[in-house]
Amino acid sequence: MNSSNNELILGIDGGGSKCKAVLMRGENILGEGIAGPGNPLHGFEQATTNIVKSAKLALQAANIDESELSNIVAGIGLAGVNLPVLFDQIEHWQHPFKDMYLATDLLVACLGAHQGHDGAVMITGTGSCGFSYIDGKAHMLGAHGFPHGDKGSGAWFGLQAVEQALEATDGLVQETALTPKLFDLLKIKDATELVEAVAKKPATFFAQLANLVFDAAEEGDQIALSIVDEGSQYINKLAESLLKDKPPRLSLIGGLTPRIKPWLANNIQAVLEEPLQPPEIGSVIYARQQLALNN
Amino acid sequence: MNSSNNELILGIDGGGSKCKAVLMRGENILGEGIAGPGNPLHGFEQATTNIVKSAKLALQAANIDESELSNIVAGIGLAGVNLPVLFDQIEHWQHPFKDMYLATDLLVACLGAHQGHDGAVMITGTGSCGFSYIDGKAHMLGAHGFPHGDKGSGAWFGLQAVEQALEATDGLVQETALTPKLFDLLKIKDATELVEAVAKKPATFFAQLANLVFDAAEEGDQIALSIVDEGSQYINKLAESLLKDKPPRLSLIGGLTPRIKPWLANNIQAVLEEPLQPPEIGSVIYARQQLALNN
Repeated sequence: MNSSNNELILGIDGGGSKCKAVLMRGENILGEGIAGPGNPLHGFEQATTNIVKSAKLALQAANIDESELSNIVAGIGLAGVNLPVLFDQIEHWQHPFKDMYLATDLLVACLGAHQGHDGAVMITGTGSCGFSYIDGKAHMLGAHGFPHGDKGSGAWFGLQAVEQALEATDGLVQETALTPKLFDLLKIKDATELVEAVAKKPATFFAQLANLVFDAAEEGDQIALSIVDEGSQYINKLAESLLKDKPPRLSLIGGLTPRIKPWLANNIQAVLEEPLQPPEIGSVIYARQQLALNN
Repeated sequence: MNSSNNELILGIDGGGSKCKAVLMRGENILGEGIAGPGNPLHGFEQATTNIVKSAKLALQAANIDESELSNIVAGIGLAGVNLPVLFDQIEHWQHPFKDMYLATDLLVACLGAHQGHDGAVMITGTGSCGFSYIDGKAHMLGAHGFPHGDKGSGAWFGLQAVEQALEATDGLVQETALTPKLFDLLKIKDATELVEAVAKKPATFFAQLANLVFDAAEEGDQIALSIVDEGSQYINKLAESLLKDKPPRLSLIGGLTPRIKPWLANNIQAVLEEPLQPPEIGSVIYARQQLALNN
């Protein structure tokens, strides 16, 4: 463990919207880099290109020549590789690193949040999920994708807002301030334009609409409140399920955290603890753990 | 009207899964043809190719040379052309007919169902919507598309089944017979395979899962019953909204009709009347009405 702690290690966290890389030696961050989406579900080429790009940017930031990539071990946590077919695809990638240790984005997020120790996390960003890692055993909840899963995620909140606005403009549910807010945000003027604006859009598009639902809920909008209530209850259920396994710590992470946390049940809010490190440092921790196991 | 009644007319109904053409003279059907998807939302080339293909097949069935297309007027009802951008695109198509009268699939379905007279229809197939045509005024409800709209449609029922199965395998809702039924239908064995099977799938894929929800509901499955209840209530709301305008007749049409009709409110079931003609004959009626107006 001591030798690997002094070794240069790249930690990479690749999600649906971006890929973050960090270059570390011991406790020190030497450089960081950010590139585009790293989820191989949306394309192997795009994901691997952005993984390498973020890594090179981290080396650049550390004033290290990019030819050094082949001498550096990388820990990589990726969204999507919970699907075996995608895990295999990335595992067989002719990567440019000295060695690559691949894990799910959930495992590296959990390792980061609890500094390599056992614990559980709930992630609500574009997607949603729960994950625990206790005594070497991983347990995953949710992370099923959009639109059939990821309840309580940014994409889910955005989709609910669109659904409710369309039913309201049809006069089938009561119209509230949520509809004009949505129209303003999307710079549109009616339901026809809304349908054109959202047709065939990916989860990331809908996730951009999530803040608007929370804004409206905080102002007392009834439709927004019922959406926030349903989404929060799902996250409460995730938490209750994770807590059954008695994780030493439970953290809520992901871009929606500041918006959704105040709406969770009091007993859930009370047990949540701040994440100690971000997922890309979780990837460094994962690589070090694997190096220690293998040496 | 008399002259156009003796003229050969093609009626075409193009939806998300197929394009149906009928060739008529007066009351007589001379030939019919079926080709692939005709919804321009999924591609202009594919839609126009299938429109022409179905028309040629109808001519073939009537033993008329396809070179005659240029002497025949076509009434065409298409899904998707409620979006102005798609309506314009098809209107500017260099079509092979003598003349083309373009309408939404909803208008021709309504004209068909009520033999050219005023009335209203609800359509539940892959998608869902309500439509009325009274005193020359069209009123549309729903038809917003998947996954943000089309509640109570085949695609919506399928999506709910997948959502519930995933929450059940996570232990967040009670597991019922719906989950193993879904796994059997898709020939899969767990949630991971379910996620792989449904990722990025279009509305037509989810619509194939709708019958399973009704099968389970009819056997008393609690999850399936709550899905069917929610979907049926939406169709009830569509009907109540359409009935406010006092249409002479109201019909329920589309592939899901036999499954969902028994679950609608009794007062709604009581007023539903059988459609008189299919949508492609509605397209013939539309073309004749337009010819009469223009001559």
